[in-house]
Amino acid sequence: MLAADFQEWMQAHAARMESVLDRVLPPASQAPARLHEAMRYVALDGGKRVRPLLAFAAGGLTGADTARVELAAASVELIHVYSLVHDDMPCMDDDVLRRGKPTCHVAYDEATALLVGDSLQSMAFQVLAQHRLSDEPQQQLKMLELLAVASGSCGMAGGQAIDLASVGKELTLPELELMHIHKTGALIRAAILLGALCGRAMSTAEEQALQHYANRVGLAFQVVDDILDTEADTATLGKTAGKDAANDKPTYVSLMGLEPARRFAADLHAEALAVLEPFGDAALRLRQLADFIVLRKF
Amino acid sequence: MLAADFQEWMQAHAARMESVLDRVLPPASQAPARLHEAMRYVALDGGKRVRPLLAFAAGGLTGADTARVELAAASVELIHVYSLVHDDMPCMDDDVLRRGKPTCHVAYDEATALLVGDSLQSMAFQVLAQHRLSDEPQQQLKMLELLAVASGSCGMAGGQAIDLASVGKELTLPELELMHIHKTGALIRAAILLGALCGRAMSTAEEQALQHYANRVGLAFQVVDDILDTEADTATLGKTAGKDAANDKPTYVSLMGLEPARRFAADLHAEALAVLEPFGDAALRLRQLADFIVLRKF
Repeated sequence: MLAADFQEWMQAHAARMESVLDRVLPPASQAPARLHEAMRYVALDGGKRVRPLLAFAAGGLTGADTARVELAAASVELIHVYSLVHDDMPCMDDDVLRRGKPTCHVAYDEATALLVGDSLQSMAFQVLAQHRLSDEPQQQLKMLELLAVASGSCGMAGGQAIDLASVGKELTLPELELMHIHKTGALIRAAILLGALCGRAMSTAEEQALQHYANRVGLAFQVVDDILDTEADTATLGKTAGKDAANDKPTYVSLMGLEPARRFAADLHAEALAVLEPFGDAALRLRQLADFIVLRKF
Repeated sequence: MLAADFQEWMQAHAARMESVLDRVLPPASQAPARLHEAMRYVALDGGKRVRPLLAFAAGGLTGADTARVELAAASVELIHVYSLVHDDMPCMDDDVLRRGKPTCHVAYDEATALLVGDSLQSMAFQVLAQHRLSDEPQQQLKMLELLAVASGSCGMAGGQAIDLASVGKELTLPELELMHIHKTGALIRAAILLGALCGRAMSTAEEQALQHYANRVGLAFQVVDDILDTEADTATLGKTAGKDAANDKPTYVSLMGLEPARRFAADLHAEALAVLEPFGDAALRLRQLADFIVLRKF
């Protein structure tokens, strides 16, 4: 059971993310209108906004100005949304449903989906470069580098490549973990670090603790995703359920079994909470988000 | 007839670009190996490197350190290469030949081509963020913003969307120009400005002159491309010739006719040279590149 004030906090910050994305995306009336309309179609009114919420929570840890964190959070969410658009395309996962709506290449066409993803990626870096997000421009360059590395071939896109190569293959648990550290972990980690980097400088110990939290939460997110994909039906999930198994993709459930996967998620959850202890009350939202990520039903 | 020393300068700087790209791209042995191998396949050993050469020439104008310019140039070239990979895909131009080699989705597969393009875009911003390219970090943030805007929906990707929407339609000359200002012009302009921004601060008049040059050269590049696409055969061009006409795409040649298109290119060339006059000898390479772009036969 999540605390009522946390539910309110989540709703308020998800709404704030929506309004920031609405503000940074070009209006649908602006040429090329169809492209801009499609970018808004995929980026607005959808998703749990887990990465932005993590960025807001991490910004709280370092006393960051929310007006800065919301832009860092938007840049990470734009990368996430672009990756969903490209992953859903026929040459990748070939999915027709996302966040309860037809996927971009279904609602528009494949060429538009390709350009929507490409443009959202550019926009992520534009948002991160064009506003002052840190008192130190050098720190902001570090944020840009961090997001670029997390997105590219040694981060999210690389994880997607490992995922593709693993279809129909037996993976070991360490191999599965390596894939997820890249595919979802890198961007979750970037969200948390970028949020925190908008605020006061952290000590090395603080930054290490935050990275440790990010790694555990990122992995827990994926384990729970695999569990939900096994259990849930399509209506609850808002995307096609059971498709990893159908696609012969290795998951934590297929490798460990359902109960051991649940215990693994619980262990990651406990570890994520433990490393936050030195932060005291400042880490309240990060704790609650770890709870939410592990206990969610969708 | 191009001066012998200019030919040497071009060869030396194209070779330098090759070695920088080889250095910044992950080795093909690094996981995910197939993705990194494909990234190197498309980015290395190919192309005229027009954008990097323009960046080097513009860096010469502001006395920029070549070790900085080469990284700015590489970031622009990575964006250019990613766009070629995605443009060649079946859902876009569906082309099988590029720079005399099978295109990425032919040599590898569509999913890999998608991820190669995505990863090269991330890498462009990574290269621009992780090295010191200006004494002023604030200036470097401006460079990142400039490249992001030039690449996205209000730049190159937007031009591609306008291009797709124009297939089979009658365009007016201003509409065709609007498309090319986005599709090829934005990135050529970014190459020139990024190269110059690695060096000393420019006066407003100097920056305006350089932008004017960039706009004229960018458009001339496209007009000449259309002329060559009409005239050349596939072997000389290194990509499928005559395909714009075959695809019912409007070109300067189809709208103006061949001779008026040639005169238009010559006018743009003359204008580009005229705006460089105040720079004197420092603009020698930019002048020679304008000559090369208009007089090239491939």
